[in-house]
Amino acid sequence: DRVEDIIPENHIAHYDLNKLHSTAEAALNKEHVLILTPMQTFHQEYWDNLLQLTYPREFTELGFILPRTSSGDIALSKLEAAVKKVQTDKKNQRFSKITILRQNSAGFDKLMEKERHALEVQKERRSAMASARNELLFSSLGPKTSWVLWLDADIVETPPNLIQDMTSHNKAVLSANVYQKYYDDQAKKVQIRPYDFNNWQESDTALELAKQMGDDEILVEGYGDLATYRALMAYFYDATGATNAEMNLDGVGGGCTLVKADVHRDGAMFPTFPFYHLIETEGFAKMAQRLNYDIFGLPNYLVYHIEETNT
Amino acid sequence: DRVEDIIPENHIAHYDLNKLHSTAEAALNKEHVLILTPMQTFHQEYWDNLLQLTYPREFTELGFILPRTSSGDIALSKLEAAVKKVQTDKKNQRFSKITILRQNSAGFDKLMEKERHALEVQKERRSAMASARNELLFSSLGPKTSWVLWLDADIVETPPNLIQDMTSHNKAVLSANVYQKYYDDQAKKVQIRPYDFNNWQESDTALELAKQMGDDEILVEGYGDLATYRALMAYFYDATGATNAEMNLDGVGGGCTLVKADVHRDGAMFPTFPFYHLIETEGFAKMAQRLNYDIFGLPNYLVYHIEETNT
Ligand SMILES: Nc1nc2c(ncn2[C@@H]2O[C@H](COP(=O)(O)OP(=O)(O)O)[C@@H](O)[C@H]2O)c(=O)[nH]1
Ligand SMILES: Nc1nc2c(ncn2[C@@H]2O[C@H](COP(=O)(O)OP(=O)(O)O)[C@@H](O)[C@H]2O)c(=O)[nH]1
Ligand SMILES: [Mn+2]
Ligand SMILES: [Mn+2]
Repeated sequence: DRVEDIIPENHIAHYDLNKLHSTAEAALNKEHVLILTPMQTFHQEYWDNLLQLTYPREFTELGFILPRTSSGDIALSKLEAAVKKVQTDKKNQRFSKITILRQNSAGFDKLMEKERHALEVQKERRSAMASARNELLFSSLGPKTSWVLWLDADIVETPPNLIQDMTSHNKAVLSANVYQKYYDDQAKKVQIRPYDFNNWQESDTALELAKQMGDDEILVEGYGDLATYRALMAYFYDATGATNAEMNLDGVGGGCTLVKADVHRDGAMFPTFPFYHLIETEGFAKMAQRLNYDIFGLPNYLVYHIEETNT
Repeated sequence: DRVEDIIPENHIAHYDLNKLHSTAEAALNKEHVLILTPMQTFHQEYWDNLLQLTYPREFTELGFILPRTSSGDIALSKLEAAVKKVQTDKKNQRFSKITILRQNSAGFDKLMEKERHALEVQKERRSAMASARNELLFSSLGPKTSWVLWLDADIVETPPNLIQDMTSHNKAVLSANVYQKYYDDQAKKVQIRPYDFNNWQESDTALELAKQMGDDEILVEGYGDLATYRALMAYFYDATGATNAEMNLDGVGGGCTLVKADVHRDGAMFPTFPFYHLIETEGFAKMAQRLNYDIFGLPNYLVYHIEETNT
């Protein structure tokens, strides 16, 4: 029941998508995982964390997309050096494939940030991010991919069994809870705080707000201007609760989100245009729902976003 | 300025999507074309027509998706034999890659056709087709693809320079006019008639109809129950007109439609759910428009759909 290429010497590849599975026992079943990362900055901590993941590398593929800006140039050369090192090292330690893409669509221009109202900037930024994610997804998803792990380039700490842990829930879409470690000057120690507010459950208020919006307006979570009263997973973290506790979600972020490849293959992508007044990863979640998939989050399963004093 | 793999021996592939072009001189610029065909039945005439296309095969990739039904089994074995023949023949006559997928999503069950009202059946069929197209697209589009030609398995006659002709228009989305040849018993000769009514320009009437529809209702072109007054490209054929005449379109069919790969990479797929009350290829056209692409058709550029006495 393995998915095999036939007659590859003649450039014929034959795959039965019906025999391609995404199960709770991904590693055991040798399911291929594609880790996708849009990368504006190369953080060594991200890379070190990636290398400590225990999912078998022979079944792990990596895909990166970098903006064609000067920060993208810098990130690219660092990424290339890191990638070259691991892929020329011991054969059994290599990833099955690494794709590095330079982005076609315009990256978000940092200079604009001060000139414009934050919410407006946020819309453009999210739309640019959606384009980058789509380019990466459409170019790298293959007929052997069982799972896609969206992992942002500034996620610097995750459990080593991240992929095994998350696949074991066997969900179509599943988000980890993205927190941040910071040094608390008063308490004089490292503390944690919620970071990503894109993982949420829908509220009647937000639906009501959306109804009153013009066709092309979007509702971005995490902006004070609009009180949505959505239930944000970031606030559902319970330090004493089971790490495998699940909650239903309606919107997700892209920080650390696992997706069954079939969800994307059925058409779920990252809308750059308002889709039910949502874009990017939140629009993706809505699209997955329209394709009849259920979305979940793990409120007590924490991964950490980098803390940068200067962005 | 060519797009190249680097260090492929280490499974690292590096692509600059910004240097990947889709131009009016596709063959000259060695642009890769991916021909995608959902296939329920293998028609020898389709295959023979495909083999007579003059676009360089070294830049032509093929992708097929077949339903997992008994008719899919039959088509698969015929397709495999045909594919094997060409890919083991002279090296310089081989296609650069051929991917054959067996569909995961349920194919449309022919048995239901008689039991249900035609419009209802049409909706289910179009939705199943959309799933098949998405599975094929997401699994086969690669970082080197410049163009995607959607070519149905029952298109049996096209000009040999189809790809050069169509790419020369340099449009984001461009549909040929799908006609059918048939034997006219009265005139005692072969005549032609319009076949595909999914290539159309929007009308105020259709927009008005859509406005009055429930959120989940769809508007399928070509069904008598609903007079949409859309301008159907099928009726704009002028035997005396220039074959390169263009017209704006708002909806397209999948019979013979050329798409710049960037349109798909930006996220345009085939909605299985109502998107502006449209699904499948018509929904794709709307999505391409939402991504700011313009859509065109070639009313005088004819390709032919098979005529089958049974089916
Ligand atoms: N390819 C690409 N990646 C980007 C761009 N902007 C940000 N990123 C990356 O996308 C991810 C999310 O962006 P970030 O600014 O961290 O968003 P935030 O954490 O939600 O504020 C990170 O991995 C960034 O490195 C861009 O313009 N192009
Ligand atoms: N993979 C797949 N292909 C299909 C299925 N049904 C039809 N097709 C193919 O999809 C294309 C369009 O279908 P067809 O029935 O000819 O549509 P029509 O010409 O618009 O009536 C043709 O190439 C068919 O062979 C299906 O269930 N799965
Ligand atoms: Mn971030
Ligand atoms: Mn047909």
